[in-house]
This record gives sequence, structure tokens and C-alpha cells, in this order.
Amino acid sequence: MAVSNKNASPVKIILPESEMPKQWYNIAADFKTPMLPPLGPDGKPISPEMMSAIFPMNLIEQEMSSKRWIDIPDEVREILFKWRPSPLVRAVALERLLGTPARIYYKNESVSPAGSHKLNTAVAQAYYNKIAGTKHITTETGAGQWGSALSYACTVMGLSCKVYMVKVSFEQKPFRKMLMQTWGGTCVASPTDQTNAGRSVLAKDPNCPGSLAIAISEAVEEAVSDKTGSTKYALGSVLNHVMLHQTIIGQETKKQLALAGEKKADVVIACAGGGSNLAGLAFPFCKDKIEGANIDIVAVEPASCPSLTRGTFAYDLGDMSGMTPLLPMYTLGHEFIPDTIHAGGLRYHGMSPLVSKAVQDGLIEARSIGQTECFDAALKFARSEGIVPAPESSHALAMAMREAVKAKEEGKEKVIVFGLSGHGLLDLVGYDKYMSGALSDFAPTDGQIAASLACAEGFPKP
Amino acid sequence: MAVSNKNASPVKIILPESEMPKQWYNIAADFKTPMLPPLGPDGKPISPEMMSAIFPMNLIEQEMSSKRWIDIPDEVREILFKWRPSPLVRAVALERLLGTPARIYYKNESVSPAGSHKLNTAVAQAYYNKIAGTKHITTETGAGQWGSALSYACTVMGLSCKVYMVKVSFEQKPFRKMLMQTWGGTCVASPTDQTNAGRSVLAKDPNCPGSLAIAISEAVEEAVSDKTGSTKYALGSVLNHVMLHQTIIGQETKKQLALAGEKKADVVIACAGGGSNLAGLAFPFCKDKIEGANIDIVAVEPASCPSLTRGTFAYDLGDMSGMTPLLPMYTLGHEFIPDTIHAGGLRYHGMSPLVSKAVQDGLIEARSIGQTECFDAALKFARSEGIVPAPESSHALAMAMREAVKAKEEGKEKVIVFGLSGHGLLDLVGYDKYMSGALSDFAPTDGQIAASLACAEGFPKP
Repeated sequence: MAVSNKNASPVKIILPESEMPKQWYNIAADFKTPMLPPLGPDGKPISPEMMSAIFPMNLIEQEMSSKRWIDIPDEVREILFKWRPSPLVRAVALERLLGTPARIYYKNESVSPAGSHKLNTAVAQAYYNKIAGTKHITTETGAGQWGSALSYACTVMGLSCKVYMVKVSFEQKPFRKMLMQTWGGTCVASPTDQTNAGRSVLAKDPNCPGSLAIAISEAVEEAVSDKTGSTKYALGSVLNHVMLHQTIIGQETKKQLALAGEKKADVVIACAGGGSNLAGLAFPFCKDKIEGANIDIVAVEPASCPSLTRGTFAYDLGDMSGMTPLLPMYTLGHEFIPDTIHAGGLRYHGMSPLVSKAVQDGLIEARSIGQTECFDAALKFARSEGIVPAPESSHALAMAMREAVKAKEEGKEKVIVFGLSGHGLLDLVGYDKYMSGALSDFAPTDGQIAASLACAEGFPKP
Repeated sequence: MAVSNKNASPVKIILPESEMPKQWYNIAADFKTPMLPPLGPDGKPISPEMMSAIFPMNLIEQEMSSKRWIDIPDEVREILFKWRPSPLVRAVALERLLGTPARIYYKNESVSPAGSHKLNTAVAQAYYNKIAGTKHITTETGAGQWGSALSYACTVMGLSCKVYMVKVSFEQKPFRKMLMQTWGGTCVASPTDQTNAGRSVLAKDPNCPGSLAIAISEAVEEAVSDKTGSTKYALGSVLNHVMLHQTIIGQETKKQLALAGEKKADVVIACAGGGSNLAGLAFPFCKDKIEGANIDIVAVEPASCPSLTRGTFAYDLGDMSGMTPLLPMYTLGHEFIPDTIHAGGLRYHGMSPLVSKAVQDGLIEARSIGQTECFDAALKFARSEGIVPAPESSHALAMAMREAVKAKEEGKEKVIVFGLSGHGLLDLVGYDKYMSGALSDFAPTDGQIAASLACAEGFPKP
């Protein structure tokens, strides 16, 4: 075992490869009431066939599956072994800094080659596409985490990959683009002149800075335009099969806590944008909670984009332009445009339907936090634990620190676990701005949210 | 144990914390003839007292020690546990790509928070300084790897740190500077107006782009000017105690090879600039070789800066301006200025005296390689194994790939181990240039080397 230091509990708990989960966990099987289906433009549930123009059938089956456990293919496991099981690390230096009686653990997903949890699903999606005969995958990316993860996954599976990157990010974040190209991906600044969607935007505004909605439209258009069916589209969050592929995180964490001698976690914390990082860590703990365990499971979202804490549960579009089905989820309205905080991965108007359901069912509690508190926490973490957290991950960290301080005030020896979803080595500009005092906090007004939600008013009610 | 996958040898071999070495290995104890001493400006051996103005006495003792094993303090071990033991990974995908019968393993030092092996000595040096009463450490940095590692090590030990970064790098590599600041280090562009050395350079040339020699002069001047003795200077390579602190790498690797079921390594490969990465991986294998084992141990240097392959063994200065003692080492002459390849960490005119001795004694064989072959190898590695190697590490990788192809031609099942000293996530500009065809190879002419070596002609002969 990784734990044989007799004198002290180990700093870093590593599972052997043989203990890496062999199945993904599908929380849909354990909800007390069934999930609401996604709806088409006609208000009727979407059929698998309707999705087959953009996704391969094996992933569509996973998307709609109600099976509790789904086998992870050996070929996917072999690639994940390069960095998985990922370490669970006891934040000894941070505990000391805070003077807390709490034991703080972080699940370190930053050790993946792409630097975040995104590879867990990228590898799986590339694999299922490969065996379904896909030759080429298209996707969109904002800040670039997902685009780089998919570029790597495609190259190891022998597929080509094209990433439509929002033009303003493409220009501001050249390193992410270089990383995608290093991994053999093709990264273009969206809007491009290569799709009808892109050309129509450029005709109106040749200098358009792009948006995630336009980039999605371009990526989906490229996929559906290939009538041979060998081009498909991939999404890095929100959908059920993406949540599924991430559940390896929480399953490992539970085994590692047991190895560390912890009977249970008291608080489990993860940041939430589209929901895949949260689902990955939290769903296996939600299973325990459904079976009666007493665990606080906390979703942390940015104050600037508070879909769970200030949004509404409704049927809404997954994108801004209506290319996606209507999804039953917490949303701020598909026209909501969050402020440009540095945690680009958390700037999403909606929330995964599975995560939304878990919040509705009381399994997960949602809280929000402003970015300056997050950067302050991230600096303290970097200067004690060493790792520079991704701005997204710093939201979970900041909440873990609040909980650790609370445990100190209450004199309680709590076990706090948070997800370090990625590192911030390609996000240092945000740190630089914070250190020079150039960052502030944002939160939408109630009026702004109400106005944005109005765009979803004509849709069916859940 | 980490190895319990019954069906296949594991991809990733992880040692438990309890198996992390408790002692550093000092190769000086095993050389057949004693090391030559460093000499002062008067040609006489340097005394410990002469070094005490810039280093604490406990590190000077290590520098001069001939003890074979030196205990690693618990406080250092606790910090190293955050990422150590580092993984030894079987490069299964690379083997498949090359179609080689060789088994290729890489020791992955890129998992440290600073992204390279440099932290191994940074943490130790900060610790010894702390217990000796040092409050503040100065250093220089070129590309920024060492400056960022020391910034982190100082912050966890409660010391302040000031890094004189060569101005041209400071301006070209803003991310490294931001990383140092994120870790609480102060990073200034050298030449500064804060030292006599810096002011004198600026008086002659206000736009001087700086050099490593000037930065060393400034850092050492700041340390010796503090007459309270609470400011010391730290060096990231070349010196004996730095080599010592890195030997944890090779000791772990030997245990991991045994865990993977390998009876021995046939070829051990590491890149060499100042020598610390090579020493770290190779010296524990050199010990086996001294005891009769048959292992090829290869130092790989850049063709543009070939101190071992085309330099001379001589007493020479460690810097350009004469602040250091004369060291017995392979050198290209302290006035040698290598071309600006992207592997900034390998651009050093000399070589660690311990490594030089190991080469002289036939324990290590030196070879050189051009940067375009290295980037080609690095891209193949990134697209198979996933990790983007540091340009420095890609030299070892390229040589490992040559050896794997040779094994294929010879039909031999060799075990090849190479050191992945760091990742290249902050070096993507080099990759971008390579992919766009903008990089070429450099090698000095014999005349250039002879001219540069002339500067060391007046020094005592070893």
C-alpha cells in the first residue's frame, strides 16, 4: 500500500493502478425520481436518432442510460494509467497556516498531461468515437482547457481534431493554442470563414471577437455537414455522459480517504461551471448520502455567474443560438453573459441536468464566492502547498478554507475534501493582475438575471 | 505495493512514501582518486571560511564532505512528500510508435510544483539556510526555472527570496516572473540600480540586456554586503552539494525498476547543463558501475554548448566575471557564449566538477545533439505519452529514442531509462517556432572554442 509511514499519516495517498475504478458511476440510477428528458424544438423528447448526426451512437446510449455502473474500456484505462489514480494530498502546510483542527485533503487532478480533469472524459469520448468509426472530431473552446484536452485525446486515439477557439481568447491566450497544436490539434479563431455560421457573422462584423455560441455553431455545423458520418462533435461538460466519465475522481477519493484512515468525509467541495468537475468528485459521495451518510456536499460557483444560487430550474437552451436541445437545468437564461472573470471555465449560464437534479433533491448544496477571495486563497495555497491552482479550482479551495476556519471556531476535527481540478500555470496573468490590485468582484443584479431569464419564458415548464 | 496489476506490468511505478530515500548519495566517496579542490584567486585551495560569506556553514560542510551517505532532514522530506517519490513511467505508447523491443522508462520530475527537478535542491538549501539563521536568499536566474523553484522553497521555509533575472529573459518570459511572484519571491530585471555591479553596467549602457554573469555578480554582492550574515546566496547547479541533493532521483529510480520487475537498466540517459539533473539520475547508477555493473550512462548536451564532448578538462571560473573560485571541470572557457537555443538550462560553459570527474573516470559517456532533433522527439513524445517535455529534457528523450531505434535494429530487448527533468508548459513558444519551421541547429566552430578556451590559459593546471 502507499501508506506505510508508521509515524505519521502520509502526505500523499496514491492508489495502485489495480485499484483504479473499473466502472463509471451513473447517478441517474439512484435518483428517487427519473430525470426529465431533453426536449426538441417541438417540445417533444429528443430521440437517439436526432442526436446521431453529431454524436456516435455508443455515447448517445451512455447519455440516455439508467444503468448504475458502466464498464470503463481497457484501452481507456491504459491511457488514464499515465497519471491515474491521481493523488489525494493532505494539505498539511495549509492546515498549519490556518491553525485549524480540520484535516484538509485535495484530490489533485492537475497531474494530468493537460493539467486538469478534462482529460478523463476527452480520452473516453475519443475512444468511443474511434470504435464507432469517427475519423475527425470538432469542438469549441473558450479559455482552451477543453480544446487542449481533446487535442491530446484525439492524437493518442489516431483521430484528427479541430478546435474552434473564441477569437478573443485565441489572441489573448496564445499558449493554449500552441499546446493544442503541440498535441496535433488544429486550432482556429472563431468566427472563421470556413463555415456558413462563421461567414454570416463575419459578413455583418469582420472584426467580431467571437463567442462560445458562435464557436459551438461552427463546430456542430462542420460535424453535421460531413454526410459520410465520419466527423462528430464533442462537448466537455454539461451532458450526462461527460458527468459519468468524471466519476472516476470521486470513486478514487473515497478509496484514498479509507487508506488514509479516515472513516468518512464531513465536507466535500468542488467548483461548478458546466458541472463535470463537481459531478466527478461529488456523485460517488452523493451515492453514500442517498444511502444515509451524513456528508455536506458543496458546489461552489462564481458570484458573477450564479446559476445554482440565483438562477431558476427551467427548460433552457444549452447554447445561445439554439443548436442544442432544451435541457432541464438551473439556468440564468441562455442570453446571460457573465462578467469576464479569470475562471473562464465557470462562465456558463446553465448547469448540467444531473447536477441540477442532485441540487433539487438536496444532495448538493450550492454557494457562490467572489474572485478576489478566490485569488487570495490561491496565493495562500501556492505559498504553502506549492501548487498554483487554476482560477476555477480556487473557488473550491476558498470554500474549503472557509470551512476549515469554521471548524477552528467550532473546535471540530472535520475532514474536508476539495477538488483541485487543475493547475494555473497557463493562467498566471490572472495572478499577476490580482497581485497588482487590478481585479475586482462582480455580481449581476436581480434585474439583470430576471431580464436574461425572460429569454427562456416561452419554453415548456419542467 | 504500487504494482499489483497481475495481467500486465504497470504503466506507472510509484513508490510509497516510506520507500523515499532517507539519505543522499555522495559519489565523491566512491571515486578511485580524490576530487581536486576548488582554488582561490591565489591558486591555493579555497577554505570553508572563504565561502562562508555567501553560503551557510552547513552547506559548505556538505560541499566539502567525503561521507558516502548524508541524512535527509525530516523537514525536507516532509515537503518533498508533496510530489515525491516521483513516478517512473513506462513509455508504452512511445515504444509502440517506435516499434522497438526496448522497454523505455522515464523518471518524471515534471510533477513537482515548480515543474522540474530543481525543487529537490531548492528545498534542501532553503532548509539549511533557515536552520543556520539566514533570513533572506539571493540568486540569479536565466530562463527562470531555478528562480521559481527557489522562490517556492523560500516561502515554505519562511525566508524571503530575491531573484536577479537576466533582463532580456525577464522581458521575454513574463510568466516565469509571475510564477516567482505568485510564490512570494521578488524578481528584478538585472542589471538593476540596486547594486554597485548593476549600477556600473548601467552607467556604461543604460539599455544593457543583462547576462547571467552580471546577475550572479548582483546576487552575490547583495549577499556579501549584508554584514549581519543573515543574507546568503544560493546556486541551482554545478556545486557538489547541489548534485548531492538531486541523488534522490536515481535512488528512487533503481527501486522502481526493481518493482517493475527489471533486473537492471542497460542504458541510463539524462541531459546535462550545469550537471545537477544528470548527477541526480546517474550517480546512483554510477555506484553500481563502480561495483562492476554493466550500464551505459549517457550525458546529453546540446550541440551548441558541448562542454563535455568538445571542451577541455581544466581549472576555470564558474562565472564570466570572476566572482567564483576556479573549479576543476570540463569547460568551453568562461567567456564562451552559446547560441540562444530554447533549452536555456543547458547553456552553461562549464560542467559540475563531480560530473566532470565521473566522465574522466569513464563512468559516464557524453554525447551531443542538435535542438531540431530534440524538438522532433519532443513532439512525438507529447503526441504519444501526453507530457510536453521541457526543451532541456527533450535532449535526453531524443537520445533515448536513438537508443530504442538501435535496439530495434539489433533486435535487443534493452531497458532504457531517461530523465524527464521537467515539463515544457512555460516553453511553448519554442514548440511554436519549431512547428513553424523557424528553428535551426547551431554548433560552435573549433576556432571559436579554442578562442574561448584561451581565457582560461593563465589558470593553474589540474
